[in-house]
Amino acid sequence: MTFARVAIVGLGLLGGSIGLAVRDHIPGVATAGWDADPAVRARAAARGLTGTVCETAAAAVAEADLVILCVPVGAMGAAARAIAPHLKPGVVVSDVGSSKAAVAATLAEALPGVTIIPAHPVAGTERSGPDAGFGALFQQRWCIVTPPEGVDTAKLDALRAFWEALGARVEVMEAAHHDLVLAVTSHLPHLIAYTIVGTASDLEGVTQGEVIKYSAGGFRDFTRIAASDPTMWRDVFLSNREAVLEMLQRFTEDLTALQRSIRLSDGDALFEHFTRTRAIRRSIIEEGQDDARPDFGRSDH
Amino acid sequence: MTFARVAIVGLGLLGGSIGLAVRDHIPGVATAGWDADPAVRARAAARGLTGTVCETAAAAVAEADLVILCVPVGAMGAAARAIAPHLKPGVVVSDVGSSKAAVAATLAEALPGVTIIPAHPVAGTERSGPDAGFGALFQQRWCIVTPPEGVDTAKLDALRAFWEALGARVEVMEAAHHDLVLAVTSHLPHLIAYTIVGTASDLEGVTQGEVIKYSAGGFRDFTRIAASDPTMWRDVFLSNREAVLEMLQRFTEDLTALQRSIRLSDGDALFEHFTRTRAIRRSIIEEGQDDARPDFGRSDH
Repeated sequence: MTFARVAIVGLGLLGGSIGLAVRDHIPGVATAGWDADPAVRARAAARGLTGTVCETAAAAVAEADLVILCVPVGAMGAAARAIAPHLKPGVVVSDVGSSKAAVAATLAEALPGVTIIPAHPVAGTERSGPDAGFGALFQQRWCIVTPPEGVDTAKLDALRAFWEALGARVEVMEAAHHDLVLAVTSHLPHLIAYTIVGTASDLEGVTQGEVIKYSAGGFRDFTRIAASDPTMWRDVFLSNREAVLEMLQRFTEDLTALQRSIRLSDGDALFEHFTRTRAIRRSIIEEGQDDARPDFGRSDH
Repeated sequence: MTFARVAIVGLGLLGGSIGLAVRDHIPGVATAGWDADPAVRARAAARGLTGTVCETAAAAVAEADLVILCVPVGAMGAAARAIAPHLKPGVVVSDVGSSKAAVAATLAEALPGVTIIPAHPVAGTERSGPDAGFGALFQQRWCIVTPPEGVDTAKLDALRAFWEALGARVEVMEAAHHDLVLAVTSHLPHLIAYTIVGTASDLEGVTQGEVIKYSAGGFRDFTRIAASDPTMWRDVFLSNREAVLEMLQRFTEDLTALQRSIRLSDGDALFEHFTRTRAIRRSIIEEGQDDARPDFGRSDH
């Protein structure tokens, strides 16, 4: 089976990018979109993010055999309840949320009897909203699918084929494991970046102007991460609380150890740690998850 | 006064970039370079990082009216002692070290009677070595100069003009204040990045392969920072210990507060914090210290 009609609920960075990627890569598939915000619907229609932009959630999902919820994790329940009475029999409902166990539970409760296959494309930018999306966002990125036990394998295969058609690589894993992995590769980095940007703005001995002027020494990279959508990230931390707190605890232990090395002027311990972390960078580049250009220079040369 | 002959001691990323920037922007100025490592000297000569690459430090500095030490902060003392007997009367000795109070003290001790004007161009990439430099590195970046009390103003003006000719903007401040500012805009971000990359490699429930595969969720940006030169960064933390420990303490307090908000599911506190940090990002882009392209997408579109 393949999906002929796809509905996208929520037309921000992720929803818009899915719509554009379908247009670019599987043009035979029809897309319909809806967003709760009329201004977003207007921009989505102007940009052609989906084939049609509907005035109601009901209209967007009525004919769909795949519905993808692209709203912040905390808004999944309300979105699911809004579409529940209007779904076609046999439909697959999926999502793009950054935490999976909580979303799976929310959707299962709101959509009894419906096939729910949660997913998380590990892709994005620091931008948000209907002007942020672009069709190449998922190229070479991983999409993690976390199906419930006993899932209809034909539907799972169809969802996998859909993401692969958009350029993504697909991995299937349990929701709880997803939440642990993403806590370290995404949620913790964002929390740290948000923290350090806040710390820098609150100093009394250093002005905010100085922090901005000399940000090229490393700080500006954290501000890019900390420019991400606040609603989305609030919901991620609330919905993946246990795994994030666990990773935070480990991070704090490691930071305390390095702090102690600095206090004791233990140069060997610092050098050993700083050397070890270089190997991971090389692996990420080899695996195609980042490019090797020396990006601190920023200018193309 | 202007500098007609510039010696560069240490031909890695910074030293090489200075040599290339002089060639590109002030071609009337002659450059001579030296590096302790014969392999680096060979690469420097092949790339033409300086007009001449000398076999000894003595030969490199003999004719120079400006000597710039471009070695790790911990190697400044040895480099200064090596050149001390060979300096021309009236020479200005400067450097590019990331901490300034410790370097100023080290150079003053090693070079009694010599005019020392420490400097720090806040520019770099995650690369290091003689193949990493490029002439545009300093364009639009700030160079902080920390002259001692009673400095010869003609020499200070000449050093300022030199850096401006390479494309940099120059700011003069006290060494202690530099060290506090850079502790937050550069040293703390690097320490945090090194920490989180280490934390991610040591987990037992998540494999290193998974960390690498799903790094596009934020983690990969930290690995880029944590790929920086281990020797240089060990020396930075050892030489700017007090300011780094002070900033670490504040960071830890702020992180603990956010951790508490997550534990208590205080969504409002998280949202308020995540919104506030966005403004700093906008200012950095407006000030020309980063570009606005949505870099998480990486691909040019």
